Amino acid sequence: MISAEKKMLLAQQVEAIARKAGKWMAGHKISQVTTKGGVSNVVTDIDIQCQRLIIEECTRCLPESVILAEEENRQQIGEEFTWVIDPIDGTTNYLYDYRHSCVSIALYYQKEGLIGVVYDPYLDECFVGIEGVGSTCNGQTIRVSGNDFSHALMMVGTAPYNKEMADKTFAVLKRLFVETRDIRRSGSAALDLCYLACGRIDGFFEPVLQPWDYGAGSILVRNAGGTLEAMTEGALTQLKPTGIIASNGTCHAALRSVILEGETG
Amino acid sequence: MISAEKKMLLAQQVEAIARKAGKWMAGHKISQVTTKGGVSNVVTDIDIQCQRLIIEECTRCLPESVILAEEENRQQIGEEFTWVIDPIDGTTNYLYDYRHSCVSIALYYQKEGLIGVVYDPYLDECFVGIEGVGSTCNGQTIRVSGNDFSHALMMVGTAPYNKEMADKTFAVLKRLFVETRDIRRSGSAALDLCYLACGRIDGFFEPVLQPWDYGAGSILVRNAGGTLEAMTEGALTQLKPTGIIASNGTCHAALRSVILEGETG
Repeated sequence: MISAEKKMLLAQQVEAIARKAGKWMAGHKISQVTTKGGVSNVVTDIDIQCQRLIIEECTRCLPESVILAEEENRQQIGEEFTWVIDPIDGTTNYLYDYRHSCVSIALYYQKEGLIGVVYDPYLDECFVGIEGVGSTCNGQTIRVSGNDFSHALMMVGTAPYNKEMADKTFAVLKRLFVETRDIRRSGSAALDLCYLACGRIDGFFEPVLQPWDYGAGSILVRNAGGTLEAMTEGALTQLKPTGIIASNGTCHAALRSVILEGETG
Repeated sequence: MISAEKKMLLAQQVEAIARKAGKWMAGHKISQVTTKGGVSNVVTDIDIQCQRLIIEECTRCLPESVILAEEENRQQIGEEFTWVIDPIDGTTNYLYDYRHSCVSIALYYQKEGLIGVVYDPYLDECFVGIEGVGSTCNGQTIRVSGNDFSHALMMVGTAPYNKEMADKTFAVLKRLFVETRDIRRSGSAALDLCYLACGRIDGFFEPVLQPWDYGAGSILVRNAGGTLEAMTEGALTQLKPTGIIASNGTCHAALRSVILEGETG
């Protein structure tokens, strides 16, 4: 059991690391791009260097901790402290200078989310979620929205590394579009979950995500009053790849039913 | 015929108006929201007031001009100067404080685009296109990307006011997703066209747009080396509602063929 004071102190340290890494990322130019199995899945030299910077600072913060991170096969999950790191969430956006990417750092303790921090250097917004304490954006408390399903703005993921799922995914996206206000697709799942946490959208669905995509954002959503579930049983605690359904709570049952029923609903 | 010097001087004046209106919009809170035929089509008191501010300044700039604008039935198209104004493009985003909306102001002369200005107050980015001169973002020259179709990042519109078109629209979106890198959906067509003009995306498609949505952005795309066409013959010159296909040029033929063929392609 970690005290609220200890968590808040750690959160301040993680925020400082995320802000430093995010500013470094936004201020540097890519000099090398490689693909990881398909044109939709790229990694740049900045991802690698940014991750090394984050790991160095996180390890200094908690020397006993282990690392689960997107790049360079850092795939450890520990019994006590585990850092879950995406050095650049929204790498395709970053490659295009699309200005909607972020640094995502989560701290898990005994496989449960403790602290989630997401920093967007372009809008200079730092989202911080602390388990059992609450969620903030630049220090201001944030809460999910109260819109029902028919008035909801839905953020959707396309699972671009899994194009064989397109028929099923787009059947769901079409139904979500028809039955709600509209859909958005941003290219950064970590920021999507932060936007849900602060009421900029009402619901979120992506059919396949990795733990570093949802690690921090899931803590933010839950501690801002939202509902979040893995589409694979138990997967969030196990930090495994999974689809994610998340919402403001008010529209969760309707959202869930469309996603699980798909086109036939 | 308007000289390049005259156009550049006018563009400076329009940029000043757009920056002023954009900062005003981002600094004010909504106190009234009404729908214009469906939950997806909203207007706020800030749209109305922002439009009045813009019209006042544009009319002072060119007293002989007429106004084609989104709100309050300002639907005139003149033989000489016509302002084409969207006071807040991305009103749903604005309603949600989603921080991706803009002011869009175009000046048409004898029904041809002369100057297009789009200002995003959140990232403090002002996009300016001048017919025959070029396009800039915050004073820096911008150009479209060079990616081919299979490497393209595609921005798509959903036509949220025309949900009866969903089957056809989503058949196209699915094909675009499968055959390119990925898709994005932002909720501001004016910014989408600016992002195309500066290479943040490679192509754009929305099945239904109004002249104030594409008025400024179309000038930006064409003068940044891009290709843009109306899906209704002659519609851009006539400033009528139309679907828009736009791209970096390199991927235009392939994009066009998917959109016109739809699911059966």
